[in-house]
Amino acid sequence: MKIASIETIPYEIPYTHPLAFASGSVSTADHVLVRVTTTDGVVGSADAPPRPYTYGETQSSIMETIGSLFSPALVGTSIFDREKIHAVMRRTIHNQVAKGALDIAIWDAIGKTVGQPVHRLLGGYTDSMRVSHMLGFRPAAELVDDAHRMGEDYGITTFKIKVGRRPLSLDIETIRALRGALGDEVELYLDANRGWTANEAAEVLRNTTDCDLTMLEEPCDAKEAMSRRRLVDRSPIPVVADESAPTAGDASRELLNGGCSAICIKTARSGFTEATEILGLCTGLGVDVTMGNQIDTQIGSLATVAFGAAHEATSRRAGELSNFLDMSDDLILDPIAIRDGRISVRETAGVGADIDEEKLAAYRSDR
Amino acid sequence: MKIASIETIPYEIPYTHPLAFASGSVSTADHVLVRVTTTDGVVGSADAPPRPYTYGETQSSIMETIGSLFSPALVGTSIFDREKIHAVMRRTIHNQVAKGALDIAIWDAIGKTVGQPVHRLLGGYTDSMRVSHMLGFRPAAELVDDAHRMGEDYGITTFKIKVGRRPLSLDIETIRALRGALGDEVELYLDANRGWTANEAAEVLRNTTDCDLTMLEEPCDAKEAMSRRRLVDRSPIPVVADESAPTAGDASRELLNGGCSAICIKTARSGFTEATEILGLCTGLGVDVTMGNQIDTQIGSLATVAFGAAHEATSRRAGELSNFLDMSDDLILDPIAIRDGRISVRETAGVGADIDEEKLAAYRSDR
Repeated sequence: MKIASIETIPYEIPYTHPLAFASGSVSTADHVLVRVTTTDGVVGSADAPPRPYTYGETQSSIMETIGSLFSPALVGTSIFDREKIHAVMRRTIHNQVAKGALDIAIWDAIGKTVGQPVHRLLGGYTDSMRVSHMLGFRPAAELVDDAHRMGEDYGITTFKIKVGRRPLSLDIETIRALRGALGDEVELYLDANRGWTANEAAEVLRNTTDCDLTMLEEPCDAKEAMSRRRLVDRSPIPVVADESAPTAGDASRELLNGGCSAICIKTARSGFTEATEILGLCTGLGVDVTMGNQIDTQIGSLATVAFGAAHEATSRRAGELSNFLDMSDDLILDPIAIRDGRISVRETAGVGADIDEEKLAAYRSDR
Repeated sequence: MKIASIETIPYEIPYTHPLAFASGSVSTADHVLVRVTTTDGVVGSADAPPRPYTYGETQSSIMETIGSLFSPALVGTSIFDREKIHAVMRRTIHNQVAKGALDIAIWDAIGKTVGQPVHRLLGGYTDSMRVSHMLGFRPAAELVDDAHRMGEDYGITTFKIKVGRRPLSLDIETIRALRGALGDEVELYLDANRGWTANEAAEVLRNTTDCDLTMLEEPCDAKEAMSRRRLVDRSPIPVVADESAPTAGDASRELLNGGCSAICIKTARSGFTEATEILGLCTGLGVDVTMGNQIDTQIGSLATVAFGAAHEATSRRAGELSNFLDMSDDLILDPIAIRDGRISVRETAGVGADIDEEKLAAYRSDR
């Protein structure tokens, strides 16, 4: 059960529908598959999606961080000694996605070694997560169609609207169009990806008080410390920190500083170990959490479901779990099904995202 | 005066005396020389020292960030349009050292284009900076000898003691030995590089009240938000944020959050442009600044001198400018002299650190 080797395999899978948002856009999944093999021959896997516009990482920096900095120090360590493993990873600052994927791959190996699904090892609260679907920068009519289709095809009733554009009327009209067309039963919330100033965000909130929005994520750059504190203090709805609180330390500082009133947890950047720490901080302080999506593959989405379904607090709100629908393919062997607006955990040992080796051979970009 | 090309040249120069500190150690300068050539044929240079244990960057990530993410977007932009250049760099998160070096190289090119020394373009307050010397993890007797030699050879009278070890007595005894041997005239301050907890730092301060220490830098991990706030609130001396406040946004949040009461500015991670923003924040709030060293070469140290001497607030305290003394060589054409404890600005156009092309050819590691 010691780490025998750590592999990083780059691969590229195109999107059928490129996604645009205030901080960037994505047209190809140029990710890294991280594989940990133990001395017993168990293989744990996880997906690492590079997001330079959010965490400063690229496909090659993820491979180098894991291959050159982590792997030499970790080979020979037991997969159960997670505190030791994290002590090694902490020596390198940032590189959250590299660390998150390695942590999840180790948890996958732990689950397989002890013969248990990871969602049970993490808490085992429930067996599925409700799905929230993300509506990107497109004309309001197209977004309404998309939302209707998601409702009809998958039973999804919660939607995150990507905002953060100027003039503000562009987003305000989109919000109104969606609420008008979708009715009162769906849940709508906003993600500005730092696109506005804090004062612009306040203006949008003032102009959408009748739209029953439930949350506002990353209204502005977190460096707007004073204005953001004022926004958070006066906002009628939770202001969620996502990219401004990628680590437990960032989350505690933003919460104490009044920079947010809720925290988005993403397993792709926090793994399961730091996500557990962040969750403890939030439940301890009585602060809401959401399970976010890092434009994840099905492999990444299943990791989010495993963590989210494992705990009461993370399964209370819908998780952002549907971005994979825009990919042309995936490395997963047994594809995810969304039924009645939910994704189920896998009851197999590990995280449950087994890899299709033929697809991996076809999409890997290093051979 | 448009950017025609951006080069990143990796090189390696060994240290004669490896430096050890609480967050890492350095035995070879495996840096990147960044060169910006304009359409007029002006070449601006800067040094990028990778510090994975502080900023998560490696030699290859710096080269990739500048080469793959920044360069394609910046070629064709005027070197004077710094706000546009920074808007491009901001799209990528972190990678502070890559951004800092590119900014300084652009300022060097600006200085050469307009025929002015950059320290004058930045403010022109004075013509030299007082030097602080860093005393690393070695037996107290050796540190005393080192400090004496620095006084005799270079006239240096300000010393930063690297601390952050356990048991705390190790550092407390070192502090006492240095104060006892060096007398009351020298300035001594501490840098724990996050090695202690906030409460351990408080214990060291309580046990060294008679040692006339002037500052305590990075006592603990900034994620200890609540304990650190308590330490800062009660500390009799300024608590300096260094690696916990690498950007203007981090500085404002740490200051508002009570995580520090002074800010260390390092041009290697902030360039001149963001350093100016951080300085404005600090002078506006009435908060002390120090000019820090990122284990810089002479090229990097001259950049620090150019920025530090340019402003009243940054030249008030001694700058950390002597780490280059431990290097076996340097790429600089005209070496730095430390006289009467000071380093002078260069009155040539640009930053003043011209490159010795023969040495560059000898030390570059890409050919």
